[in-house]
Amino acid sequence: MNESTMQRLRYNYEPKIPKVFAEPLSLIKPEIGEATHAQSNQAELKEIFPHTYGMPIIRFVKGKSEVEHKPLKFGVILSGGQAPGGHNVISGLFDALKKGNANSKLYGFLRGPEGLVKGRYVEIKKALIDKYRNTGGFDIIGSGRTKIETEEQIESSIQNVKKLKLDALIIIGGDDSNTNAAFLAKYFIQAKLDTKVIGVPKTIDGDLKNQYIETSFGFDTATKLYSELIGNICRDVNSARKYWHFIKLMGRSASHIALECALKTQPNVCLIGEELAEKKVTLQQVTDYIVDIIVKRSQKGENFGVVLVPEGIIEFIPEMDELIEEINDIMAEKTSAFSKLKTFAGKKSWLQKHLSKKAFALFDNLPENISLQLLMDRDPHGNVQVSRIETEKLLIDLVTRKITEMKKEGTYNGKFSTYAHFFGYEGRSAFPSNFDSDYCYTLGFTAFLLALNGFSGYIASVKNLTDEVEHWLPCGVPLSMMMNMERRKGKMTPVIKKSVVDLNGKPFKTYEKNRDKWAVETLYRFPGAIQYFGDLEVCDIPTKTLLLEKGNLKEKRKKK
Amino acid sequence: MNESTMQRLRYNYEPKIPKVFAEPLSLIKPEIGEATHAQSNQAELKEIFPHTYGMPIIRFVKGKSEVEHKPLKFGVILSGGQAPGGHNVISGLFDALKKGNANSKLYGFLRGPEGLVKGRYVEIKKALIDKYRNTGGFDIIGSGRTKIETEEQIESSIQNVKKLKLDALIIIGGDDSNTNAAFLAKYFIQAKLDTKVIGVPKTIDGDLKNQYIETSFGFDTATKLYSELIGNICRDVNSARKYWHFIKLMGRSASHIALECALKTQPNVCLIGEELAEKKVTLQQVTDYIVDIIVKRSQKGENFGVVLVPEGIIEFIPEMDELIEEINDIMAEKTSAFSKLKTFAGKKSWLQKHLSKKAFALFDNLPENISLQLLMDRDPHGNVQVSRIETEKLLIDLVTRKITEMKKEGTYNGKFSTYAHFFGYEGRSAFPSNFDSDYCYTLGFTAFLLALNGFSGYIASVKNLTDEVEHWLPCGVPLSMMMNMERRKGKMTPVIKKSVVDLNGKPFKTYEKNRDKWAVETLYRFPGAIQYFGDLEVCDIPTKTLLLEKGNLKEKRKKK
Repeated sequence: MNESTMQRLRYNYEPKIPKVFAEPLSLIKPEIGEATHAQSNQAELKEIFPHTYGMPIIRFVKGKSEVEHKPLKFGVILSGGQAPGGHNVISGLFDALKKGNANSKLYGFLRGPEGLVKGRYVEIKKALIDKYRNTGGFDIIGSGRTKIETEEQIESSIQNVKKLKLDALIIIGGDDSNTNAAFLAKYFIQAKLDTKVIGVPKTIDGDLKNQYIETSFGFDTATKLYSELIGNICRDVNSARKYWHFIKLMGRSASHIALECALKTQPNVCLIGEELAEKKVTLQQVTDYIVDIIVKRSQKGENFGVVLVPEGIIEFIPEMDELIEEINDIMAEKTSAFSKLKTFAGKKSWLQKHLSKKAFALFDNLPENISLQLLMDRDPHGNVQVSRIETEKLLIDLVTRKITEMKKEGTYNGKFSTYAHFFGYEGRSAFPSNFDSDYCYTLGFTAFLLALNGFSGYIASVKNLTDEVEHWLPCGVPLSMMMNMERRKGKMTPVIKKSVVDLNGKPFKTYEKNRDKWAVETLYRFPGAIQYFGDLEVCDIPTKTLLLEKGNLKEKRKKK
Repeated sequence: MNESTMQRLRYNYEPKIPKVFAEPLSLIKPEIGEATHAQSNQAELKEIFPHTYGMPIIRFVKGKSEVEHKPLKFGVILSGGQAPGGHNVISGLFDALKKGNANSKLYGFLRGPEGLVKGRYVEIKKALIDKYRNTGGFDIIGSGRTKIETEEQIESSIQNVKKLKLDALIIIGGDDSNTNAAFLAKYFIQAKLDTKVIGVPKTIDGDLKNQYIETSFGFDTATKLYSELIGNICRDVNSARKYWHFIKLMGRSASHIALECALKTQPNVCLIGEELAEKKVTLQQVTDYIVDIIVKRSQKGENFGVVLVPEGIIEFIPEMDELIEEINDIMAEKTSAFSKLKTFAGKKSWLQKHLSKKAFALFDNLPENISLQLLMDRDPHGNVQVSRIETEKLLIDLVTRKITEMKKEGTYNGKFSTYAHFFGYEGRSAFPSNFDSDYCYTLGFTAFLLALNGFSGYIASVKNLTDEVEHWLPCGVPLSMMMNMERRKGKMTPVIKKSVVDLNGKPFKTYEKNRDKWAVETLYRFPGAIQYFGDLEVCDIPTKTLLLEKGNLKEKRKKK
């Protein structure tokens, strides 16, 4: 038998559901809320999304529903990087669809949006979904990063939707994929298709949230897993008392992951990209900040510690961001000239001629392995691959350089020895926590209800997430209200606004209030591994971020 | 409140104990078993350990005990790298000691054997131990790697033991620390001290085992944690379908960790150092083996996979081992000449003059970052720091080199993109699994009984570990019977023999039988996070290694 005990046991976990979902579908009805509008660029967005702009918030409540339950055909797509819970969105969707009519069918497009473009899909039947319930990964149908943008892609998507006679298409993805979902909704309406398009908010990074979306799925599980590991390392440094561990965490556009992990584990240093950008901090200042804490701890005889670094900080530090931008631009403009340069020395002297003086000075001062990483192959959009840059080692190098100088000067005489880590991929496909299992199942169920009731261009959303599951509120929010206009590839385009860490928000304020104490005193917390069985107290508590943001500290919810 | 929910809940976990330990101490007696002898070097060992050589195996059974329970004073030392369960050895010891006489005292020496040498200790009282029960790390008293070897160290240890009037000293450590324990037992007897010395088998590496020691503590938890992460990455590669992840694992002298993780997760490649040594494999052959699997998978359209690499393989591959030895020797002999060389080019041309031709050719062919790592600062014993060498990146480099050549030749046209990981420190201080919690508590209790009954120079051991805890058999084994003579720092010395992977043993044979299938087909298993609460089935199953070795596949032990 190829399955682990955990796999078998998780197949049988029954996600908890909002009270209203326990009703027969004939008693679940949409309640039409207030009309929506975008936070900015209303006129442009209204013009771009004439059919869907300004639609109301939907909330599902107990009440007689007139919808007819004929057999339906739904398609589902997993888009972008893995996040724990994707399989549960599909389970919730599947169960709701079959609850409506046992003859309804669910098709899974293979390997992301490309599956829709190329007409590659499987029918998701009970035997298949039952082997994926409450498990991590996106392997049931695979995922991919294709955007449906070109006329050919759009046309073949429309044709494939027509061929399958899909009543709805559910797109599980991050901000980009949901932006794409909004466009598909528009194209389908223009093509006079009756196929509804519903998005589902996914991303471990936690940057797809707003007044209507309390959190994206996967963030809970991923941050719990990273915090398990960080807590273990905190315990290890506190036992061995001789190493500084620098830990890079995922989170390119926002530092939510690092902040959540810091709140959970209380490390000595956690950099928050948004703050570095706001304060226009230089790389040298970041180095000095860390060295200062190392010195203070060393004076107490504690030559050890833990530093958390969100992968995105190199783009948040203004001078680094400028350097990267300059390199991106030059490499895009002069690709062939650049690609002819074979040695690092050759590339460097070429860059000296083409970069601004300030940018080159910074480049020249970086450790060589980091400079090399900045010149690596670009991603398909012509950008540097941020997750490939060993930011944790960059900081180790810069800090070590300064500590070495101080030792020479006699201003530091402690020991200093380091280890580097990057926690990212190990968290994207973990078994979803009970929170993410329940949340995703509810999102899938909600997505079904939205489409069933004729809504399109919506994203499924659940409110009241810090309360007990039975009190969760399944909702729908028009995608267009979450958008603004941003410059992409040189032209203004509607995109869903990413949520970055709010420096006035409670999660950051809580960290800010405690960080000087956590820096010098040793106050590590050890969250341990994600628990799936047992008291709600240990299994079901949402993230600190969510609890602080919602001001609803029900950490001590009653036990089972 | 600074403690996580998990911390609070784990404090209250009550370790399961062997049936005999439920008896009052007056009904637990030692049963004297057969006399022991070492596997080799009997004469030398008998001469070195005249007082303790040949002592019998001890087993604790139900029976009237005549031992008087006056107040005792015990000392305890945590030695070497952290392993999950160390705190539970101390809890078991503490509870047994207090059960004997409430006025007995337990002293914890601070930061390893150095605490004994320098007379630094704390009394471990109830309030203290209660905050460490069933938790990871060694932070209750810290650990360290000092060996008590010099006359001064031995003399001051004896003085400190005398000052405290210790009845026993319990040393929790790996093979080196237990060898040291055997010597301390000898020195104490020579000094006419009545202080008994008992060792406890610790190491996540799993290489301290033999016919009497079924496993060292910590191996269960660490391999469960690494397997959680490896399983998550397997799920991730199977979802994204575009990356090969190369994962280095701890295990310098033996590949037990990698083998156990492979049995749990079924990756595409797992290198076993012992096999590479046995077959005298070259680095190029290892590269070719991995590339062959990459090519086969690519032909199936599966341009992804997972490779496990024990950190020790660079010393198992004969040519690498020779190179490292040569570099170690040269750097030790000509330290000052070498340290004057500042550039890599300078070092390299110097090495060309001093290394054998074969060794230099290999060195010259290594990726530059690896060559640099081979020349880094030595450890205190003059050896290269193996865990600092990025063996996973070495393999990535060599494999990429070959794949690139094949692409040029047109013999490979798949994609090939990689990520590197090192899982080690995140597992050493995890919350001990229920298995390790129970096992360590029993070990601590057993260590107490051994000393109480007047035995010294023994290691605590528990047999029958694949059976239910109530049937576990607490034993004592003379340390001298586990020893052989090995060359250390130029002279023959008694040391505890490390257990390496037995290529004829069931764990390796099981892997060997399946690996070609696991290599090409995609048969990953996902063990998930360590569970502490709930069914025994998910919480308490021992390692596959132990189950296979003991031939007692009680995986389906009855549920709670």
